[in-house]
Amino acid sequence: MRVAVLAGGTGAARLACGLAQALAPGELSVITNTADDEEMWGLLVCPDTDAVLYRLAGLFNADAGFGVRDESFHALETLGLLGEPVWFGLGDRDLGLHLLRASLRRRGMTLTEAVAEIGRRLGLNVAVIPMSDDPVRTRVATEAGELSFQEWFVGERCEPPVRGLRFEGLEAALPAPAAVQAVRAADLVVIGPSNPLLSVDPITALIGPHLERERVIAIAPIIGGRALKGPTVALMAQLGEEPTALGVARHYAGLASGFVLDAADRELSDAVARLGMSPHVLDTVMAGAEGEERLAREVLALGRG
Amino acid sequence: MRVAVLAGGTGAARLACGLAQALAPGELSVITNTADDEEMWGLLVCPDTDAVLYRLAGLFNADAGFGVRDESFHALETLGLLGEPVWFGLGDRDLGLHLLRASLRRRGMTLTEAVAEIGRRLGLNVAVIPMSDDPVRTRVATEAGELSFQEWFVGERCEPPVRGLRFEGLEAALPAPAAVQAVRAADLVVIGPSNPLLSVDPITALIGPHLERERVIAIAPIIGGRALKGPTVALMAQLGEEPTALGVARHYAGLASGFVLDAADRELSDAVARLGMSPHVLDTVMAGAEGEERLAREVLALGRG
Repeated sequence: MRVAVLAGGTGAARLACGLAQALAPGELSVITNTADDEEMWGLLVCPDTDAVLYRLAGLFNADAGFGVRDESFHALETLGLLGEPVWFGLGDRDLGLHLLRASLRRRGMTLTEAVAEIGRRLGLNVAVIPMSDDPVRTRVATEAGELSFQEWFVGERCEPPVRGLRFEGLEAALPAPAAVQAVRAADLVVIGPSNPLLSVDPITALIGPHLERERVIAIAPIIGGRALKGPTVALMAQLGEEPTALGVARHYAGLASGFVLDAADRELSDAVARLGMSPHVLDTVMAGAEGEERLAREVLALGRG
Repeated sequence: MRVAVLAGGTGAARLACGLAQALAPGELSVITNTADDEEMWGLLVCPDTDAVLYRLAGLFNADAGFGVRDESFHALETLGLLGEPVWFGLGDRDLGLHLLRASLRRRGMTLTEAVAEIGRRLGLNVAVIPMSDDPVRTRVATEAGELSFQEWFVGERCEPPVRGLRFEGLEAALPAPAAVQAVRAADLVVIGPSNPLLSVDPITALIGPHLERERVIAIAPIIGGRALKGPTVALMAQLGEEPTALGVARHYAGLASGFVLDAADRELSDAVARLGMSPHVLDTVMAGAEGEERLAREVLALGRG
């Protein structure tokens, strides 16, 4: 069963790990958001893509919520000593990957080719595919002016209220050919439990035309009106969307035919059905690696059913 | 008194630290060898230049003999994990400087401008000037084939006997304008106790025409037939030069009017004089920072005398 997951860095990335356990080698593709990528000292930092790579490779720093385990920040200390801005926690181990990726791209590889090469070198049997080879950058309009995504998310800790989002470069960008191929070949496309506005919208803006709604299932990243992680609820509210699982279902109604609600939101099933989506009630909280695999198997069962 | 030092990474770099103590701010320029620079993952690693920067800034890793104090190698571990060759000890703290330099150059600075900017940011009041903005690369002919300098020096630990050296790019390279200006303005030019063939020859090949022999003093890097550090003696022997302080004096006879011998080589004074150079006998072993400053003051006295 070929499966493609659309993923930001946390919820969907964890589900991808579960799917990697539940599927045969080569069956899973993960299409990652690149709109929160940022160029730093000539290196392209790709937080969502790398969170997926590191999680699949067993290297992810779950304590920090980003980057690599047992990380140090000595290069950043030198940069600070040299007067550079160091608000972004660029770790030393992480830098090794960025250096290789920059080097592969300088040798002529596209971003997707470079990430595929890194995936191979990490021994992954999952295809990790950045959504586009063209730069797309989330710009966050706030009362304090427009910020890059990382400036807002890391630098300002998501504090300045958001008045709008735009994805710079999106209109000129093409979806990565490998991403289009993966969703076309997929028996099931899973919109993972990531932030719909920040992580998923940029991906679906590019590959939406290639999705067949009947084969798409979305998973709510909001449970009982709260997100397990990240600014999803506040952001949806600030941008005028209902910050609940139902609001997320409404957001995806044109893209997905199935919608997974957490058991805590069971009472929203009828409202989801009225959007023309099949509601599926599951325990969407993933406890450890077992929880990731359990939810993955339950979602695969929905896809087969 | 304006002084310019021609420097490799160890002896001359230490003498430069002594001169920085003994001179007034702004009086000292250090012109560094760039022929052992090497591009790694898109970063230009400049071992001699950076040894001078780190030593002057008090950051040098004297235990390791290169790089920055309290260093870690986590980025390199990731690169190794990703299948890259990791024979060169590129440290995490050191990487911060390389990232900034690459970034400054990408913004349009020449190498000399980027190094000057880094020197300013480190708070140095010494001008550290790479010998050229153009790439010059030492290529080492050995029985095992031709190697880059770092491949031979670090990768092969200087073990393969050397049949010849060539400096790729030298014929097309121009001396850095700031280096020419520094030696022209100098009341005294010191050829520091570095390897004549590897560290000093590339510099003098470029700025030699701008040196006034009467104002140049060279310091022997060999004491009693031995170098304090590095492959000077073996290399001179392999390339047919007499591996003694006298051999070094002969090497510099056309460039320098004064030659500093260690007290252990006092008996070579007459032979040095017969080369047309003024021999000066000093204790050239620098014990700690005090020793660096002592030798610096003694050399300055010769320059004034």
